[in-house]
Amino acid sequence: MPNPLLPNIGSADPMRLIESLARMAAVGTTRLAYSPEDIKGREVAIQIMREATLAVRVDAAGNIVGERPGRAELAPIMFGSHIDTVRNGGRFDGVLGVMAGIECVHVLNTMGHQTEHPLSVVIFENEEGQTYAGLSGSRGLVNGLSREELESTDRDGRPLCDAIACVGGSPERLTQSSLPPLGVHAYVELHIEQGGELERTLTAIGIVEGISGIHHTDVVLQGVANHAGTTSMIGRRDALVAAAALVLEVQKLAGQHRLCRVATVGQMFVLPNSKNIIPGEVHLVVELRDVDNDRIHAALQRLRSVAAEIELNSGVRIQLEDRELASPVPAARSVQHAIAASCEELGYTYASMHSGAGHDAQILGRVAPMGMIFVPSIGGISHSPDESTSYGDCVRGTNVLLHTILRLDAVEAFPADEVVRR
Amino acid sequence: MPNPLLPNIGSADPMRLIESLARMAAVGTTRLAYSPEDIKGREVAIQIMREATLAVRVDAAGNIVGERPGRAELAPIMFGSHIDTVRNGGRFDGVLGVMAGIECVHVLNTMGHQTEHPLSVVIFENEEGQTYAGLSGSRGLVNGLSREELESTDRDGRPLCDAIACVGGSPERLTQSSLPPLGVHAYVELHIEQGGELERTLTAIGIVEGISGIHHTDVVLQGVANHAGTTSMIGRRDALVAAAALVLEVQKLAGQHRLCRVATVGQMFVLPNSKNIIPGEVHLVVELRDVDNDRIHAALQRLRSVAAEIELNSGVRIQLEDRELASPVPAARSVQHAIAASCEELGYTYASMHSGAGHDAQILGRVAPMGMIFVPSIGGISHSPDESTSYGDCVRGTNVLLHTILRLDAVEAFPADEVVRR
Repeated sequence: MPNPLLPNIGSADPMRLIESLARMAAVGTTRLAYSPEDIKGREVAIQIMREATLAVRVDAAGNIVGERPGRAELAPIMFGSHIDTVRNGGRFDGVLGVMAGIECVHVLNTMGHQTEHPLSVVIFENEEGQTYAGLSGSRGLVNGLSREELESTDRDGRPLCDAIACVGGSPERLTQSSLPPLGVHAYVELHIEQGGELERTLTAIGIVEGISGIHHTDVVLQGVANHAGTTSMIGRRDALVAAAALVLEVQKLAGQHRLCRVATVGQMFVLPNSKNIIPGEVHLVVELRDVDNDRIHAALQRLRSVAAEIELNSGVRIQLEDRELASPVPAARSVQHAIAASCEELGYTYASMHSGAGHDAQILGRVAPMGMIFVPSIGGISHSPDESTSYGDCVRGTNVLLHTILRLDAVEAFPADEVVRR
Repeated sequence: MPNPLLPNIGSADPMRLIESLARMAAVGTTRLAYSPEDIKGREVAIQIMREATLAVRVDAAGNIVGERPGRAELAPIMFGSHIDTVRNGGRFDGVLGVMAGIECVHVLNTMGHQTEHPLSVVIFENEEGQTYAGLSGSRGLVNGLSREELESTDRDGRPLCDAIACVGGSPERLTQSSLPPLGVHAYVELHIEQGGELERTLTAIGIVEGISGIHHTDVVLQGVANHAGTTSMIGRRDALVAAAALVLEVQKLAGQHRLCRVATVGQMFVLPNSKNIIPGEVHLVVELRDVDNDRIHAALQRLRSVAAEIELNSGVRIQLEDRELASPVPAARSVQHAIAASCEELGYTYASMHSGAGHDAQILGRVAPMGMIFVPSIGGISHSPDESTSYGDCVRGTNVLLHTILRLDAVEAFPADEVVRR
C-alpha cells in the first residue's frame, strides 16, 4: 500500500497543536462528563474545530462531530477521542487524540487536499464513566442506549437522558444506532499509552494490536470474626489472612505464571475492620486483562484452584463470582499496517502493543476496521495532574495519524473479515 | 494454706444465679456504658445487690459498690466485674462476675458466716470503652482520671464528666484515687474465657497467670497508584501486594515462629480502593499480645526486619509506628494458689492460662494482689448474642470464687512483692 501523496504530505504545526492543548487545559483538568466544566470544555473544542473550518454538529448521543466533505459519496473516515476527564485528570488523555485530529484537518486545508472519503473528527462524550457507565457516547452512536441505561441516575438523581440533553444530545432518538447511512470506512484513534512501555524501550509510536478484555471476579471470603486477644492462633478462621494469600496468588497469575497480561486486586473491604477483632469477612475484586479471552480463562481456572487450596488450608470459605466487563477487541490488520507504513515513511521507531485500557475505539471496532496509535506517557503516569507527553511525541503522533488517514483514504475496500457488522 | 471452713462451705444456688443472669439479660444485651439501657441495667443490678443485703453506694467514678462488713477494721476483699456491654453483646461477659459475686454473698448470708475482712462487690462502669476510653471506672477508682479525659466527648459531644454524673458519680472528686483508706486486701474477678481453650481441653476452670499487654503498630505502605490496565506487572509498586505479604508475616509471628501469643491485623484501609487502580497506599494496624513484654519486643524486632525485606523486594515504602496500649500485668502468685487450692477441694479440673483480653483486674492489679478465674465460653464466642457459658460452668465458677474469697480472707499478709503500690 504505497502512499499516493508522499513526499508531499505536510507536517503538523507544533505551535498550533500545543496551543490547542493549552486552551483545553485552561478550562481545568477536572471535566467530568456532563458537568459544567465539561460543557465549558466542549465549547472551547467546538471553537477549535470551527477554526479548522469543520462543520460541527452534536449527535443524538451528545458526541461532537466535526465534518469535512470528501470528493465522493462514501462512508466517512472517522478519527478522534474524548475530552471528558477523571477527577484531577491530565492534559493529554483523550484531548490529544481530538486536537491531533483537528490539526490533521488544518494540515489538509493548508495542503489544499480533499480526501476521497468524507472525514469526521468525533469527540465522544463520557468515555471515562465517572458518573454514568463509561463509553456511553460511542456506545450510543454505534448501538444506541437501552431505556434502562438512559434512566440510570448519578448520585444527585439526574438521569443520563437529562445529562445527554444538557450537552445538546437527543436522547429521544438514542434508542437505536445513529451511524452514517453508508457506515464508517475506518476508525483510527491517537491516544497516550498510559503505561511505561514506549518510554522504557525508547520507542516513538505504539501500534495497538488489540484492546484488552476486562474480567472482574468478585470474591467474598467468609471466616469467623472473634476477639483478637482471646482467640488462639490455631482456633482462627481469619478472612484477611486468607485474602492476603489470595492477593499474592493473583499477582502471580500475571507475574510469575504469565497466564494473562495484568492481574490486580484494586479494591478490598475488611469487616468489621476493627483493630482488636479478627476479620470475619473480606470482599475484594480481582481484575484480569488480556487481549486473548482464552488466556483470561486459563488465569481464571488457576484462580479458582488456588482459592480452593486456600479455602482448604484456612477454613475460610471463598466464593467467586465472575463478570466479563469487556471482551477483547482486535485492531484491524489493514489499519495496523497503514500505521506501521506511516511510521516507516516518517522514520519513527514503532512497536506493536496491547491496550490495557478501554477506549472508544473498542466500540467503533464493532462496526468498522479500527486501529489505535499510542505515544509515550512520561513515567507511565495517567489519570493524574502529573500525566505528561513530550510535545515532540504529540507532533510525531499527529503526523502518524495524518499519514494513516491518507493511507486509509486510498483503500477502496478492506478485506471482508475486517469489515465487521453489528 | 488449708481452708479453715472446709467442708462447711455452702454452694451457689443454681436457680438464683440463673435468675439473676436472666434479669440482666431481660434489659437487653446492648448496654453501652452511660446509655439509658446501661442506667436501666444498673438499677436492676442494684436491686439484686440489695436482695443480698449489701449496702450499695455509687463511687466518684460511677462504679456501684455493694458492701458487707467484716469482723475487723481491715482492708476489704474486692470482687466483681462490669455490666456494660459492646453493641449486640452477650449475656455473660462481665455480668457473670458481678452476679457470681452477689451469689457468694447470698451463700455467706445463708451460712451466717462473717469474714474477717469487709467484702466489696464492685460493678465497674465502662469496662468496654465503646464511647469513651475503656476501663474508666476501675482507672478512676485506682488513680483518678485526668482533667483532659474527663472533658473528652462521645460522638454527640457529651463530655465524660457529664456521663459519669448521669450515672450518679462525682466527677468533681475524680481527679484523684478514691480507694478505701486501708487499701484493698485482694481483688479477684470471675469472667468468661472469651476464647476456646478451656472448652477444647475439657477444663472447668482457667486460672489467669497474667493479663496480656497489648501493642499496636500502625503501618503505612506507600506504593504508586496507577492504571490497572496499562501498567505492566514489572512496572508496579502495588501497596496491597506488599501489605498482603506483611499480613502473612504477622500471622507467622505468633503462628509458626511463636514469638508472641497472638498477632493480628484486624484493620486495613486500601487507597484509592478502586477496582481498576493499582493500590497506591495501604494503612493497617498490627496488634501483638503477650504477658511478657520481652516476647512482644522480640516479635516487633522480627516485624521490622520482614517489613524491611518486603520494602526492598516491592519498592513499596513501609513506615511503622509503635504504640503500647497496655503493659502486661501478672496475677499475684498467692491468689493463683488460692484459686488452684479451691479447685482441688471442689474437685474441678483447672489449668493456668493467660488472659488475652483486657479486664478491670489489670487496673486493680496495680494496687492489690490480683487474680482471675475463667470459665469456658462455648465455641470461644464472645462480644456477640451467641456468647454462651453452660449454667453448670457458671455455678462451678461461682463456687471457686467463693472458696477463693474465704482463702484470701484467711491470709493476714501477702508476700511483700505481691502488695503492689501505685
